[in-house]
Amino acid sequence: MNSRIPPRSGVALTIKAGQSLTVIDSEGMQVSDMVAFAHEDHGEVISNGRTFDYEETMALTTGATLWSNRSRRMLSIEHDDVGCHDFLLTPCSRETFIHFYPDKPVHPGCFGNLAGVLAPYGIGPDQIPTAFNIFMNVPVGMDGRISVEPPRSRAGDRIRFRACMDLIIGLTACSAYASNGGSFKPIDYVLDDG
Amino acid sequence: MNSRIPPRSGVALTIKAGQSLTVIDSEGMQVSDMVAFAHEDHGEVISNGRTFDYEETMALTTGATLWSNRSRRMLSIEHDDVGCHDFLLTPCSRETFIHFYPDKPVHPGCFGNLAGVLAPYGIGPDQIPTAFNIFMNVPVGMDGRISVEPPRSRAGDRIRFRACMDLIIGLTACSAYASNGGSFKPIDYVLDDG
Repeated sequence: MNSRIPPRSGVALTIKAGQSLTVIDSEGMQVSDMVAFAHEDHGEVISNGRTFDYEETMALTTGATLWSNRSRRMLSIEHDDVGCHDFLLTPCSRETFIHFYPDKPVHPGCFGNLAGVLAPYGIGPDQIPTAFNIFMNVPVGMDGRISVEPPRSRAGDRIRFRACMDLIIGLTACSAYASNGGSFKPIDYVLDDG
Repeated sequence: MNSRIPPRSGVALTIKAGQSLTVIDSEGMQVSDMVAFAHEDHGEVISNGRTFDYEETMALTTGATLWSNRSRRMLSIEHDDVGCHDFLLTPCSRETFIHFYPDKPVHPGCFGNLAGVLAPYGIGPDQIPTAFNIFMNVPVGMDGRISVEPPRSRAGDRIRFRACMDLIIGLTACSAYASNGGSFKPIDYVLDDG
Protein backbone atom coordinates (compact mmCIF):
# COMPACT_ATOMS: atom_id res chain seq x y z
CA MET A 1 0.00 0.00 0.00
CA ASN A 2 1.51 3.30 -1.11
CA SER A 3 1.72 6.31 1.17
CA ARG A 4 1.54 9.71 -0.49
CA ILE A 5 3.50 12.91 0.18
CA PRO A 6 1.38 15.81 -1.14
CA PRO A 7 3.06 18.34 -3.45
CA ARG A 8 5.53 20.69 -1.73
CA SER A 9 5.46 18.86 1.60
CA GLY A 10 7.42 16.24 3.53
CA VAL A 11 7.24 13.35 5.97
CA ALA A 12 9.48 11.71 8.53
CA LEU A 13 9.41 7.96 9.01
CA THR A 14 11.37 5.30 10.84
CA ILE A 15 12.76 2.23 9.14
CA LYS A 16 14.41 -0.81 10.68
CA ALA A 17 17.61 -2.41 9.44
CA GLY A 18 16.68 -4.87 6.70
CA GLN A 19 13.46 -3.11 5.66
CA SER A 20 13.14 -1.53 2.24
CA LEU A 21 11.92 1.92 1.26
CA THR A 22 10.63 2.41 -2.28
CA VAL A 23 10.21 5.98 -3.51
CA ILE A 24 7.92 6.39 -6.51
CA ASP A 25 7.53 9.36 -8.84
CA SER A 26 3.88 8.62 -9.50
CA GLU A 27 3.25 11.41 -12.04
CA GLY A 28 6.77 11.93 -13.42
CA MET A 29 9.42 14.70 -13.33
CA GLN A 30 9.22 15.13 -9.56
CA VAL A 31 12.17 15.26 -7.14
CA SER A 32 12.19 13.89 -3.59
CA ASP A 33 14.85 15.11 -1.13
CA MET A 34 15.91 12.42 1.33
CA VAL A 35 17.93 12.75 4.53
CA ALA A 36 18.71 9.98 7.04
CA PHE A 37 19.76 9.86 10.69
CA ALA A 38 20.78 6.88 12.81
CA HIS A 39 17.81 6.08 15.03
CA GLU A 40 19.96 5.44 18.08
CA ASP A 41 22.01 8.65 17.79
CA HIS A 42 20.95 11.58 15.61
CA GLY A 43 24.54 12.83 15.46
CA GLU A 44 25.10 10.14 12.84
CA VAL A 45 23.75 11.46 9.57
CA ILE A 46 23.86 10.75 5.85
CA SER A 47 26.98 12.31 4.28
CA ASN A 48 27.55 13.17 0.65
CA GLY A 49 31.29 13.52 1.30
CA ARG A 50 31.70 10.09 2.93
CA THR A 51 29.55 8.55 0.19
CA PHE A 52 31.69 10.11 -2.55
CA ASP A 53 34.79 8.89 -0.65
CA TYR A 54 33.78 5.26 -0.50
CA GLU A 55 31.74 4.91 -3.69
CA GLU A 56 34.31 6.84 -5.76
CA THR A 57 31.57 8.14 -8.03
CA MET A 58 28.90 10.81 -8.16
CA ALA A 59 26.73 8.50 -10.31
CA LEU A 60 24.94 6.71 -7.46
CA THR A 61 22.55 4.03 -8.65
CA THR A 62 21.80 0.31 -8.19
CA GLY A 63 24.56 -1.32 -6.16
CA ALA A 64 25.74 1.88 -4.48
CA THR A 65 25.64 2.54 -0.75
CA LEU A 66 24.82 5.81 1.01
CA TRP A 67 27.22 6.30 3.96
CA SER A 68 27.07 8.20 7.23
CA ASN A 69 29.44 10.83 8.62
CA ARG A 70 30.75 8.04 10.89
CA SER A 71 31.75 5.87 7.90
CA ARG A 72 28.93 3.38 8.37
CA ARG A 73 26.54 2.09 5.73
CA MET A 74 23.08 3.63 6.02
CA LEU A 75 21.18 2.64 2.87
CA SER A 76 21.94 0.58 -0.20
CA ILE A 77 20.27 1.13 -3.57
CA GLU A 78 18.72 -2.16 -4.71
CA HIS A 79 16.68 -1.04 -7.70
CA ASP A 80 16.65 2.18 -9.72
CA ASP A 81 14.52 2.91 -12.79
CA VAL A 82 16.08 6.31 -13.45
CA GLY A 83 19.81 6.33 -12.59
CA CYS A 84 19.89 10.11 -12.29
CA HIS A 85 19.96 11.62 -8.82
CA ASP A 86 21.81 14.45 -7.09
CA PHE A 87 23.95 14.50 -3.96
CA LEU A 88 25.56 17.92 -4.45
CA LEU A 89 22.85 20.42 -3.59
CA THR A 90 21.10 21.28 -0.34
CA PRO A 91 17.32 21.22 0.14
CA CYS A 92 15.55 24.31 -1.22
CA SER A 93 14.71 26.79 1.54
CA ARG A 94 13.29 30.27 2.21
CA GLU A 95 16.74 31.66 1.40
CA THR A 96 17.09 29.77 -1.88
CA PHE A 97 13.61 30.90 -2.97
CA ILE A 98 14.60 34.52 -2.30
CA HIS A 99 17.87 34.01 -4.19
CA PHE A 100 16.69 32.03 -7.22
CA TYR A 101 13.01 33.05 -7.54
CA PRO A 102 12.81 36.69 -6.44
CA ASP A 103 9.54 37.17 -8.36
CA LYS A 104 7.80 34.12 -6.83
CA PRO A 105 6.18 33.70 -3.42
CA VAL A 106 8.68 32.62 -0.77
CA HIS A 107 8.14 29.00 0.30
CA PRO A 108 9.64 27.09 3.26
CA GLY A 109 10.91 24.60 0.68
CA CYS A 110 12.21 21.12 1.36
CA PHE A 111 14.42 22.52 4.10
CA GLY A 112 11.49 24.01 6.00
CA ASN A 113 9.40 20.90 5.40
CA LEU A 114 12.20 18.63 6.65
CA ALA A 115 12.81 20.84 9.68
CA GLY A 116 9.13 20.64 10.53
CA VAL A 117 8.77 16.87 10.28
CA LEU A 118 12.10 16.14 12.00
CA ALA A 119 11.51 18.45 14.96
CA PRO A 120 9.36 15.89 16.84
CA TYR A 121 12.40 13.55 16.75
CA GLY A 122 14.57 16.19 18.38
CA ILE A 123 16.47 16.90 15.15
CA GLY A 124 17.13 20.61 14.62
CA PRO A 125 17.50 22.55 11.36
CA ASP A 126 21.30 22.84 11.66
CA GLN A 127 21.52 19.04 11.65
CA ILE A 128 19.94 18.76 8.19
CA PRO A 129 22.77 17.83 5.80
CA THR A 130 23.07 17.97 2.05
CA ALA A 131 20.24 15.65 0.98
CA PHE A 132 20.25 12.74 -1.43
CA ASN A 133 17.97 14.30 -4.01
CA ILE A 134 16.11 11.43 -5.63
CA PHE A 135 15.33 11.90 -9.35
CA MET A 136 17.05 15.32 -9.35
CA ASN A 137 18.93 16.01 -12.59
CA VAL A 138 22.03 18.11 -11.95
CA PRO A 139 24.54 17.87 -14.79
CA VAL A 140 28.09 19.09 -14.11
CA GLY A 141 29.90 20.54 -17.11
CA MET A 142 33.54 19.89 -18.04
CA ASP A 143 34.26 23.36 -16.62
CA GLY A 144 32.63 22.44 -13.30
CA ARG A 145 29.45 24.46 -13.91
CA ILE A 146 26.38 23.01 -12.21
CA SER A 147 22.89 23.29 -13.69
CA VAL A 148 19.46 22.05 -12.63
CA GLU A 149 17.49 20.37 -15.40
CA PRO A 150 14.04 18.69 -15.39
CA PRO A 151 14.09 15.19 -13.89
CA ARG A 152 14.34 12.25 -16.28
CA SER A 153 11.85 10.22 -14.24
CA ARG A 154 8.58 9.21 -15.89
CA ALA A 155 5.28 8.38 -14.20
CA GLY A 156 5.69 5.29 -12.07
CA ASP A 157 9.48 5.26 -11.99
CA ARG A 158 10.88 4.13 -8.66
CA ILE A 159 14.01 3.59 -6.61
CA ARG A 160 14.28 1.03 -3.80
CA PHE A 161 16.61 1.37 -0.82
CA ARG A 162 17.49 -1.26 1.78
CA ALA A 163 18.24 0.07 5.29
CA CYS A 164 21.59 -1.08 6.71
CA MET A 165 20.74 0.25 10.19
CA ASP A 166 17.70 1.56 12.05
CA LEU A 167 17.02 5.02 10.64
CA ILE A 168 14.91 8.12 10.83
CA ILE A 169 14.25 9.27 7.27
CA GLY A 170 13.07 12.68 6.12
CA LEU A 171 11.47 12.61 2.65
CA THR A 172 9.85 15.35 0.59
CA ALA A 173 7.98 16.13 -2.58
CA CYS A 174 10.31 18.93 -3.66
CA SER A 175 9.07 22.54 -3.76
CA ALA A 176 11.50 24.25 -6.16
CA TYR A 177 10.48 25.25 -9.68
CA ALA A 178 13.63 24.37 -11.63
CA SER A 179 14.11 21.00 -9.91
CA ASN A 180 10.71 19.66 -10.99
CA GLY A 181 10.29 20.99 -14.51
CA GLY A 182 8.12 23.89 -13.27
CA SER A 183 5.23 22.00 -11.63
CA PHE A 184 4.71 20.31 -8.28
CA LYS A 185 3.51 16.75 -7.97
CA PRO A 186 3.20 14.23 -5.13
CA ILE A 187 5.71 11.54 -4.22
CA ASP A 188 4.61 8.06 -3.19
CA TYR A 189 6.53 5.65 -1.00
CA VAL A 190 6.28 2.13 0.36
CA LEU A 191 7.93 0.69 3.45
CA ASP A 192 8.28 -3.05 3.24
CA ASP A 193 9.79 -5.94 5.16
CA GLY A 194 10.41 -7.86 1.94
CA MET B 1 55.08 36.15 9.63
CA ASN B 2 54.07 32.67 8.52
CA SER B 3 52.76 30.07 10.94
CA ARG B 4 53.54 26.45 10.13
CA ILE B 5 51.36 23.34 10.38
CA PRO B 6 53.71 20.35 10.63
CA PRO B 7 53.12 17.41 8.29
CA ARG B 8 50.06 15.28 9.12
CA SER B 9 48.73 17.65 11.78
CA GLY B 10 46.24 20.47 12.18
CA VAL B 11 45.45 23.74 13.94
CA ALA B 12 42.37 25.72 14.94
CA LEU B 13 42.39 29.48 14.76
CA THR B 14 39.92 32.33 15.08
CA ILE B 15 39.53 35.01 12.45
CA LYS B 16 37.50 38.22 12.57
CA ALA B 17 35.22 39.45 9.81
CA GLY B 18 37.37 41.45 7.38
CA GLN B 19 40.63 39.67 8.17
CA SER B 20 42.36 37.55 5.56
CA LEU B 21 43.74 34.04 5.81
CA THR B 22 46.43 33.01 3.33
CA VAL B 23 47.20 29.29 3.02
CA ILE B 24 50.56 28.47 1.44
CA ASP B 25 51.81 25.18 0.05
CA SER B 26 55.43 25.94 0.94
CA GLU B 27 56.97 22.80 -0.55
CA GLY B 28 54.40 21.90 -3.24
CA MET B 29 51.87 19.09 -3.85
CA GLN B 30 50.38 19.30 -0.35
CA VAL B 31 46.67 19.47 0.51
CA SER B 32 45.16 21.41 3.43
CA ASP B 33 41.65 20.52 4.62
CA MET B 34 39.73 23.55 5.89
CA VAL B 35 36.48 23.68 7.89
CA ALA B 36 34.80 26.80 9.30
CA PHE B 37 32.26 27.50 12.03
CA ALA B 38 30.52 30.76 12.96
CA HIS B 39 32.27 32.03 16.09
CA GLU B 40 29.02 33.08 17.73
CA ASP B 41 27.18 29.79 17.11
CA HIS B 42 28.96 26.59 16.14
CA GLY B 43 25.75 25.19 14.65
CA GLU B 44 26.51 27.38 11.64
CA VAL B 45 29.09 25.58 9.55
CA ILE B 46 30.66 25.65 6.10
CA SER B 47 28.47 23.72 3.62
CA ASN B 48 29.53 22.25 0.31
CA GLY B 49 25.87 21.87 -0.70
CA ARG B 50 24.92 25.50 -0.02
CA THR B 51 28.11 26.65 -1.75
CA PHE B 52 27.34 24.56 -4.85
CA ASP B 53 23.77 25.96 -4.75
CA TYR B 54 24.74 29.60 -4.77
CA GLU B 55 28.00 29.50 -6.75
CA GLU B 56 26.52 27.15 -9.38
CA THR B 57 29.92 25.59 -9.97
CA MET B 58 32.28 23.04 -8.47
CA ALA B 59 35.26 25.04 -9.80
CA LEU B 60 35.67 27.34 -6.80
CA THR B 61 38.46 29.88 -7.25
CA THR B 62 39.08 33.65 -7.15
CA GLY B 63 35.77 35.49 -6.84
CA ALA B 64 33.86 32.58 -5.33
CA THR B 65 32.27 32.55 -1.88
CA LEU B 66 32.11 29.67 0.59
CA TRP B 67 28.65 29.58 2.22
CA SER B 68 27.26 28.27 5.49
CA ASN B 69 24.43 25.82 6.11
CA ARG B 70 22.37 28.91 7.07
CA SER B 71 22.86 30.49 3.65
CA ARG B 72 25.30 33.12 4.88
CA ARG B 73 28.65 34.05 3.37
CA MET B 74 31.57 32.70 5.41
CA LEU B 75 34.70 33.23 3.28
CA SER B 76 35.44 34.72 -0.10
CA ILE B 77 38.40 33.68 -2.25
CA GLU B 78 40.41 36.78 -3.13
CA HIS B 79 43.50 35.24 -4.68
CA ASP B 80 44.29 31.75 -5.92
CA ASP B 81 47.51 30.60 -7.58
CA VAL B 82 46.27 27.08 -8.27
CA GLY B 83 42.56 27.06 -9.14
CA CYS B 84 42.19 23.39 -8.30
CA HIS B 85 40.55 22.46 -4.99
CA ASP B 86 38.01 19.91 -3.80
CA PHE B 87 34.73 20.30 -1.97
CA LEU B 88 33.36 16.78 -2.53
CA LEU B 89 35.32 14.57 -0.15
CA THR B 90 35.43 14.34 3.63
CA PRO B 91 38.63 14.61 5.69
CA CYS B 92 40.68 11.41 5.78
CA SER B 93 40.14 9.46 9.00
CA ARG B 94 40.98 6.21 10.80
CA GLU B 95 38.20 4.58 8.81
CA THR B 96 39.38 5.87 5.44
CA PHE B 97 42.93 4.71 6.18
CA ILE B 98 41.61 1.22 6.96
CA HIS B 99 39.52 1.29 3.77
CA PHE B 100 41.99 2.77 1.28
CA TYR B 101 45.39 1.85 2.78
CA PRO B 102 44.95 -1.55 4.44
CA ASP B 103 48.71 -2.19 4.25
CA LYS B 104 49.74 1.13 5.86
CA PRO B 105 49.70 2.15 9.52
CA VAL B 106 46.35 3.58 10.58
CA HIS B 107 46.49 7.35 11.16
CA PRO B 108 43.92 9.67 12.79
CA GLY B 109 44.00 11.62 9.53
CA CYS B 110 42.68 15.12 8.98
CA PHE B 111 39.45 14.11 10.68
CA GLY B 112 41.20 13.07 13.90
CA ASN B 113 43.45 16.13 13.75
CA LEU B 114 40.48 18.46 13.25
CA ALA B 115 38.51 16.76 16.03
CA GLY B 116 41.47 17.25 18.37
CA VAL B 117 42.05 20.94 17.67
CA LEU B 118 38.33 21.82 17.59
CA ALA B 119 37.46 20.05 20.87
CA PRO B 120 38.68 22.99 23.03
CA TYR B 121 36.08 25.16 21.22
CA GLY B 122 33.31 22.76 22.16
CA ILE B 123 32.99 21.43 18.60
CA GLY B 124 32.48 17.66 18.47
CA PRO B 125 33.50 15.18 15.75
CA ASP B 126 29.94 14.81 14.40
CA GLN B 127 29.90 18.54 13.65
CA ILE B 128 32.84 18.30 11.24
CA PRO B 129 31.39 18.70 7.74
CA THR B 130 32.75 17.93 4.31
CA ALA B 131 35.86 20.13 4.22
CA PHE B 132 37.01 22.59 1.60
CA ASN B 133 40.14 20.71 0.57
CA ILE B 134 42.62 23.34 -0.53
CA PHE B 135 44.94 22.29 -3.39
CA MET B 136 43.25 18.85 -3.58
CA ASN B 137 42.95 17.56 -7.14
CA VAL B 138 39.79 15.48 -7.58
CA PRO B 139 38.81 15.14 -11.21
CA VAL B 140 35.28 13.92 -11.97
CA GLY B 141 34.91 11.93 -15.17
CA MET B 142 32.10 12.28 -17.69
CA ASP B 143 30.66 9.06 -16.16
CA GLY B 144 30.72 10.59 -12.67
CA ARG B 145 33.77 8.62 -11.50
CA ILE B 146 35.82 10.45 -8.88
CA SER B 147 39.59 10.05 -8.61
CA VAL B 148 42.25 11.59 -6.40
CA GLU B 149 45.30 12.85 -8.25
CA PRO B 150 48.47 14.64 -7.03
CA PRO B 151 47.90 18.34 -6.30
CA ARG B 152 48.82 20.82 -9.02
CA SER B 153 50.25 23.25 -6.47
CA ARG B 154 53.94 24.11 -6.67
CA ALA B 155 56.24 25.32 -3.87
CA GLY B 156 55.05 28.73 -2.69
CA ASP B 157 51.61 28.62 -4.28
CA ARG B 158 48.93 30.22 -2.14
CA ILE B 159 45.24 30.99 -1.78
CA ARG B 160 43.88 33.98 0.15
CA PHE B 161 40.46 34.04 1.81
CA ARG B 162 38.63 37.04 3.30
CA ALA B 163 36.38 36.29 6.27
CA CYS B 164 32.79 37.52 5.88
CA MET B 165 31.98 36.82 9.55
CA ASP B 166 33.85 35.97 12.75
CA LEU B 167 34.94 32.36 12.38
CA ILE B 168 36.63 29.43 14.00
CA ILE B 169 38.73 27.71 11.33
CA GLY B 170 40.17 24.19 11.40
CA LEU B 171 43.12 23.75 9.03
CA THR B 172 45.38 20.76 8.37
CA ALA B 173 48.40 19.53 6.53
CA CYS B 174 46.67 16.51 5.02
CA SER B 175 47.68 12.99 6.08
CA ALA B 176 46.48 10.81 3.18
CA TYR B 177 48.89 9.27 0.68
CA ALA B 178 46.96 9.69 -2.57
CA SER B 179 45.91 13.28 -1.81
CA ASN B 180 49.49 14.54 -1.51
CA GLY B 181 51.35 12.67 -4.22
CA GLY B 182 52.65 10.11 -1.70
CA SER B 183 54.61 12.35 0.70
CA PHE B 184 53.66 14.59 3.63
CA LYS B 185 54.76 18.20 3.82
CA PRO B 186 53.89 21.16 6.04
CA ILE B 187 51.34 23.87 5.29
CA ASP B 188 52.01 27.52 6.11
CA TYR B 189 49.41 30.18 6.80
CA VAL B 190 49.21 33.90 7.52
CA LEU B 191 46.42 35.76 9.29
CA ASP B 192 46.34 39.42 8.32
CA ASP B 193 44.27 42.52 8.87
CA GLY B 194 45.18 43.86 5.43
